[in-house]
Amino acid sequence: MLEHGGRLLRAAQRYGIAAQDWLDLSTGINPSAWPVPEIPARAWHRLPEDDDGLIEAARACYGAEHLLPVAGSQAAIQVLPQLRARSRVGVLAPGYAEHAHAWRRAGHAVETAPAAELFARAEAFDVIVLIHPNNPGGDAFEREALIALHSELAARGGWLLIDEAFIDATPERSVCADSARAGLIVLRSVGKFFGLAGARAGFVCAAPDLLEALRERLGPWTLTGPARYVMRQALADRDWQAAMRRRLLAQGARLAAMLSAHGLVPSGGSAFFQWRRDPRALQWHQALAQRGILTRWFEQPASLRFGLPGAEHEWQRLDQALAQVVQAFNDADRSEP
Amino acid sequence: MLEHGGRLLRAAQRYGIAAQDWLDLSTGINPSAWPVPEIPARAWHRLPEDDDGLIEAARACYGAEHLLPVAGSQAAIQVLPQLRARSRVGVLAPGYAEHAHAWRRAGHAVETAPAAELFARAEAFDVIVLIHPNNPGGDAFEREALIALHSELAARGGWLLIDEAFIDATPERSVCADSARAGLIVLRSVGKFFGLAGARAGFVCAAPDLLEALRERLGPWTLTGPARYVMRQALADRDWQAAMRRRLLAQGARLAAMLSAHGLVPSGGSAFFQWRRDPRALQWHQALAQRGILTRWFEQPASLRFGLPGAEHEWQRLDQALAQVVQAFNDADRSEP
Repeated sequence: MLEHGGRLLRAAQRYGIAAQDWLDLSTGINPSAWPVPEIPARAWHRLPEDDDGLIEAARACYGAEHLLPVAGSQAAIQVLPQLRARSRVGVLAPGYAEHAHAWRRAGHAVETAPAAELFARAEAFDVIVLIHPNNPGGDAFEREALIALHSELAARGGWLLIDEAFIDATPERSVCADSARAGLIVLRSVGKFFGLAGARAGFVCAAPDLLEALRERLGPWTLTGPARYVMRQALADRDWQAAMRRRLLAQGARLAAMLSAHGLVPSGGSAFFQWRRDPRALQWHQALAQRGILTRWFEQPASLRFGLPGAEHEWQRLDQALAQVVQAFNDADRSEP
Repeated sequence: MLEHGGRLLRAAQRYGIAAQDWLDLSTGINPSAWPVPEIPARAWHRLPEDDDGLIEAARACYGAEHLLPVAGSQAAIQVLPQLRARSRVGVLAPGYAEHAHAWRRAGHAVETAPAAELFARAEAFDVIVLIHPNNPGGDAFEREALIALHSELAARGGWLLIDEAFIDATPERSVCADSARAGLIVLRSVGKFFGLAGARAGFVCAAPDLLEALRERLGPWTLTGPARYVMRQALADRDWQAAMRRRLLAQGARLAAMLSAHGLVPSGGSAFFQWRRDPRALQWHQALAQRGILTRWFEQPASLRFGLPGAEHEWQRLDQALAQVVQAFNDADRSEP
């Protein structure tokens, strides 16, 4: 299993700080979640049914013609590689590592590369996997470039797979509306934008025959009844979505500004997180953890990802901790010969 | 996709009866569910964590040394066949059809057969799949026979896979306690006994290396946060479990008696359902559906499965409907030449 953010219970143990005392910035999940209503008992008791209106709500929200609900985009990431014969696969890197991992496990020839290289060497691949915006780098792509890349791959039976898990604050960049084209596959996540990562729900937008093959692999009842009940309403709540987009964009900018003020100018980011390549990434991670602030540390390249604080006191706490760590680093530097 | 019970919305459309007016007996799910408490918001917001105590609660409840939580036993059924090279697989039939379907799709040589034949011809198989008690037939097996069958298969690297989805009313029959042995794999479901089919939660009990391979295939976060929160408590509620076992056994017997009184002597069953082979199975199914009672009809062999009614008025409603259908059949028989 790969390493992920969100391992708060483990951090609590390692640093001897009770779980409820942490400020967890280790994921890119929106801290201002869609307000979950009470769940009717029947959602727990009965087998979930496909024709409950969830698909229609998602179709309208994402503007995709065809889509399949899945138990988080992770479920699709695991299974999509099983739907192709051995292929040459180019995966954006650094990026969400589960993609390359799943394609490798399924026996494909996987190369990881920065976006510019994948676009330039498209002819070398049958499948290209992009994360848009990229996690953690934040790379963004022009729609025209994506459509051109897809056309080149699709002409030879290839796929362009785009993981749009963090696109919801900038939906105008999504290519969901084009996802009925053969060979264009778009993953949408409801966990990040709606702040409901515990619900394990996402969507695959693609042509019907691919969705049918995926559905057959995943089997029946992949989402829980309560998750379906909640998501159906969240996806239809356009007012909340519009307000949240504005808020996330503003908060992403605030986080970038706060990090910059303490010398951590972001190397990239999105509305949901900021990312900083830094030779002292591990020291930063540990120093913040000792102050009960959990960030996501990447070993390769040495870097840190900061999710968004939620309440105002959490922003203040991060600001103060960053100042303290800068001070501690300065003191340590001075005391060395 | 295979056909399943629980398709109430579709039946509502077909028979022109509003969904809330049905008595749904088409599944084997306990109608007296464990009472779900309010879900804390953090269970929705955060990524689920493995070390939240769920595994410990399940281990204590099922008496299995090692187990892996999965999104319903269905999730394990889909993936287990991918963990073996092409094998000769014997699957109990008639029985829950997803097993044979999944093994076939993964490219194995699958034979379906009654239990007696599987036991007698064990040397012809690398993997034998039993459902215990069987759904819908109710077949039960002696522990000694199961352990002997497992030993024979395991000696040549084979597997005995036992789906114990409906065993919770008779846990003394379970072989969970033996599931650390290489090649013995036991599936437990929480949807049926706890009446929480919407939660999509189950467990695979097996040796650690097999669980690790399965876990790698399924990927992280296969259960939702709310489902983990609920199940952890339900699995620890021993008083409820003991009372429910007595209640289910009594109600299974009551259902068998009621069906017998109307000429539908069960051909088999369990505490959760009763099953009747009948040349008029389809007519019974349709006549009951016209009265808003949904049963599960099987074409091959022609048969009907009845789940348990819940409230007393539901028992009365079934009793009356059965009497009406008998009367209608008698009238029709008399009016024919």
